[in-house]
Amino acid sequence: MTKHEASTSRTPVIGSHKAYLPGPTGSRADLRVPVRRVHLSDGKDVTLYDTSGPYTDPEVETDVRRGLPPLRREWIAERAADGTPAVTQLAYARRGLITPEMEFVAVRENRAPEFVREEIAAGRAVLPVNVNHPESEPMIIGKNFLVKVNANIGNSAVSSSIDEEVEKMTWATRWGADTVMDLSTGRDIHATREWVLRNSPVPVGTVPLYEALEKAGGKAEELSWELYRDTVVAQAEQGVDYMTVHAGVLLRYVPLTARRKTGIVSRGGSIMAAWCLAHHEENFLYTHFAELCEILRAYDITFSLGDGLRPGCIADANDEAQFAELRTLGELSRIARAHEVQTMIEGPGHVPMHKIKENVDLQQELCDEAPFYTLGPLTTDIAPAYDHITSGIGAAMIAWWGTAMLCYVTPKEHLGLPDRDDVKAGVITYKIAAHAADLAKGHPGAQQWDDALSDARFEFRWEDQFNLALDPDTARSYHDETLPAAPAKTAHFCSMCGPKFCSMKISRTVMETYGSPSPEGLTQEEIQAGMLAKSREFARAGNRVYLPLTD
Amino acid sequence: MTKHEASTSRTPVIGSHKAYLPGPTGSRADLRVPVRRVHLSDGKDVTLYDTSGPYTDPEVETDVRRGLPPLRREWIAERAADGTPAVTQLAYARRGLITPEMEFVAVRENRAPEFVREEIAAGRAVLPVNVNHPESEPMIIGKNFLVKVNANIGNSAVSSSIDEEVEKMTWATRWGADTVMDLSTGRDIHATREWVLRNSPVPVGTVPLYEALEKAGGKAEELSWELYRDTVVAQAEQGVDYMTVHAGVLLRYVPLTARRKTGIVSRGGSIMAAWCLAHHEENFLYTHFAELCEILRAYDITFSLGDGLRPGCIADANDEAQFAELRTLGELSRIARAHEVQTMIEGPGHVPMHKIKENVDLQQELCDEAPFYTLGPLTTDIAPAYDHITSGIGAAMIAWWGTAMLCYVTPKEHLGLPDRDDVKAGVITYKIAAHAADLAKGHPGAQQWDDALSDARFEFRWEDQFNLALDPDTARSYHDETLPAAPAKTAHFCSMCGPKFCSMKISRTVMETYGSPSPEGLTQEEIQAGMLAKSREFARAGNRVYLPLTD
Repeated sequence: MTKHEASTSRTPVIGSHKAYLPGPTGSRADLRVPVRRVHLSDGKDVTLYDTSGPYTDPEVETDVRRGLPPLRREWIAERAADGTPAVTQLAYARRGLITPEMEFVAVRENRAPEFVREEIAAGRAVLPVNVNHPESEPMIIGKNFLVKVNANIGNSAVSSSIDEEVEKMTWATRWGADTVMDLSTGRDIHATREWVLRNSPVPVGTVPLYEALEKAGGKAEELSWELYRDTVVAQAEQGVDYMTVHAGVLLRYVPLTARRKTGIVSRGGSIMAAWCLAHHEENFLYTHFAELCEILRAYDITFSLGDGLRPGCIADANDEAQFAELRTLGELSRIARAHEVQTMIEGPGHVPMHKIKENVDLQQELCDEAPFYTLGPLTTDIAPAYDHITSGIGAAMIAWWGTAMLCYVTPKEHLGLPDRDDVKAGVITYKIAAHAADLAKGHPGAQQWDDALSDARFEFRWEDQFNLALDPDTARSYHDETLPAAPAKTAHFCSMCGPKFCSMKISRTVMETYGSPSPEGLTQEEIQAGMLAKSREFARAGNRVYLPLTD
Repeated sequence: MTKHEASTSRTPVIGSHKAYLPGPTGSRADLRVPVRRVHLSDGKDVTLYDTSGPYTDPEVETDVRRGLPPLRREWIAERAADGTPAVTQLAYARRGLITPEMEFVAVRENRAPEFVREEIAAGRAVLPVNVNHPESEPMIIGKNFLVKVNANIGNSAVSSSIDEEVEKMTWATRWGADTVMDLSTGRDIHATREWVLRNSPVPVGTVPLYEALEKAGGKAEELSWELYRDTVVAQAEQGVDYMTVHAGVLLRYVPLTARRKTGIVSRGGSIMAAWCLAHHEENFLYTHFAELCEILRAYDITFSLGDGLRPGCIADANDEAQFAELRTLGELSRIARAHEVQTMIEGPGHVPMHKIKENVDLQQELCDEAPFYTLGPLTTDIAPAYDHITSGIGAAMIAWWGTAMLCYVTPKEHLGLPDRDDVKAGVITYKIAAHAADLAKGHPGAQQWDDALSDARFEFRWEDQFNLALDPDTARSYHDETLPAAPAKTAHFCSMCGPKFCSMKISRTVMETYGSPSPEGLTQEEIQAGMLAKSREFARAGNRVYLPLTD
């Protein structure tokens, strides 16, 4: 951890400041969309998407014990008061209504509110907002929007505390996590979630089955629909925005996993498989799915239909167990939508590169383009301690091909619980994957960030380069290691090559010589003649290709 | 750096031991191919490709001042004595001769020697072995072999020492670098290279232009063919195995870069552009290319035709300057091959994902399938300090599509000179990319490594999992952080989930219940009947899904 990282997660990002954009014309006065704004030394501003919440706004005093201001409370209350039966964003969208939440994400994504409404109405995007989580800043998940990243937090029986988990959440959103999932399984599961929810500026997801299993004394066979339902209701009341439900693990699919190299690797999937096995009955999440829809509908909780049979190694990718479950998830997503419940679909896992595209193509086809939400996938199994990278490769590719949200993987995957550094490494890696996919998809405006940073790099505006970086702290500290002196921050060379070998310096000379924009439209002869003239002029000026260090 | 990483780079990798395979039947007795062998707790052995040289063999005493044993000296001497005019591996291959070097790589790659010879003869693969670098262990670069990784080392005017560079080389090869490039540009450039060469078990590449520029006092316009030629000869005598030559930066291409966002970012490219600009003459590397071929031929040095006009940012990817140069590289590769000089082609750079495939497809077409050797490419510009990851994504993809060798990028790219930790991070990231590509290409045997590790993971053989990891030290240390006690290394649960929630444990129960191999060939009715019986048996046994910790 660098000295910058060690500083609190509740201060502005160095080199950036918080700003707020107004809502679309005619929108509410209390609709203010937060952005991270980087002021450049050439006078320009670059505006970036901001997930960090009030913590990076020095004007807002935050207090973990009080929680964040409930920015959506009025919006929700007014809707409840006007007597409209709709509660879910999907229901409003289908009725042609643009909610303040839709306006909010329209500004964030630089899209028209009507486009947002259409994507939600079609089920191609979800906007997860439990009516009991008014603290969250609305965000949207869909393939026609920016690719999103989820960070898992949560203690286990083995280690960690409530404070640590709240701090991990704040830390994860500071670096760009668009949602967090609280996957706690140990003691204090309810209290941990309460603290996370009251302090989270992003939607919070859970897997209610974990808490239900705690209540069942850790015995899968003692789980029941009633126990599970009560758990879901309690979490819904707290404000959980989306829930992973392993309703696709059907009794008849369980034997399909017996021939696998690594069987069932999803915790939820294996718990339900154990239950099916013990009772020889169909998965109660499947048989009670319509009832579950009614509960989620009442709070506007989004389904995240879990892939309990996802492959746990390269050898098991794209097998019959996995795709059989996916077909069932398609069936369930249609039921959920019929109940006006927003729905996304979870995906693998461990998949070699050449088998990735089939996953997203099949999911989009079977689930009527419901947003795909994938874990990685890991593209090889040989690198424990680096699975943020093995999976970051797969994540970038699957997002390019249509995945809407990526669940991060940290360096501790398969080895231990992520600490603060691991959370940051996972989020940063996944933000890279998501942004690389935004570029590859040609998302409008995505390349402006790259262009601003490349301009700063070419013009030796080191401070601008650091401030524009996805992680300004580490970029700055790495540069400090080689050239710590302050003047080096304005030096016209890079520390890699030293002053004589700097290609960017030489290149700038070329550009100045030929002028920029380039001799477009000239014939080859004209270019040659111009070059000869320039060459003589260059020689007369002393053939200087290296600008003096002082300029 | 963990305590394991801090240990010397000249000890065996923990959990592995060095072994040697004999050559093919009828081969020389002095042909011994080193491998890294992991002995598993279930009695099996896994044999892995090994680039670490004698440093990881406790039987060999190494001494930096003496250099490594010259394992190929006899082979070279015997060839020189037999009067055959051929010197390059390409020349031998074309004449139908299988050299000991080809036999060596055949064993390493688990391929037939004749297949190796054919690939080299066709120019689809290169085997870089300067006759004056007898210390190197032969390796092959071609799309039909394992994807290779190069690590750049080298001091600059700003920092670092000879000892540091030799240590970086040893460290890089320990973690899997297949070649190293010495890109030194500062003082002691000749001496640094000598030490690196005498101690390197892998081929060493250079960019002779850097040393030539030093001799020209850092003034590009004072470079000349004669000065360059003498530099190449001196480096050839030392034993450099492959040389990057920026002969494709033609006078008429230079203006094409003036309209770019970041101009020319290759050091070699910018130096040659400056020379062309100063003299208004064609690039002397291009006009003297045939002479250069004759020199490289005499030592069996492999060309790495440099992409001096590669894009330096997302905005400049796949532009006319880049592809104009690539066409010239195609022309030059044909000239080189006509001189029986082995040749590979360098590639970008910074390229968004959707433009990567065009690069390799075009290169393969224009250069008659000569091996492609790419830097990254970086798939976004927004993450300085994480460019090993932004580029690892692009590297995995371009390798899947046909790149033969990947030049690593470290976390310090654009910011500073890589230290020991950065070198390791770069190498490990690129080994992941290379292996992910081997899997995606269906390279024979590649998946065995993943399968062995996944088996160990599923069977809770933690020590085997660590020992099989690409980086056993870090995998082990991460696990230690959460569960440091020795018994935890044999515990039947993962530290992420704790004992009750371990999906692998539940899954093993499923597997034991249904038996493995699975009920393949049974009808649905038979499976259902079997499941019911098993379910009852399971209930009778107490519905135990969690194995006791002591078993």
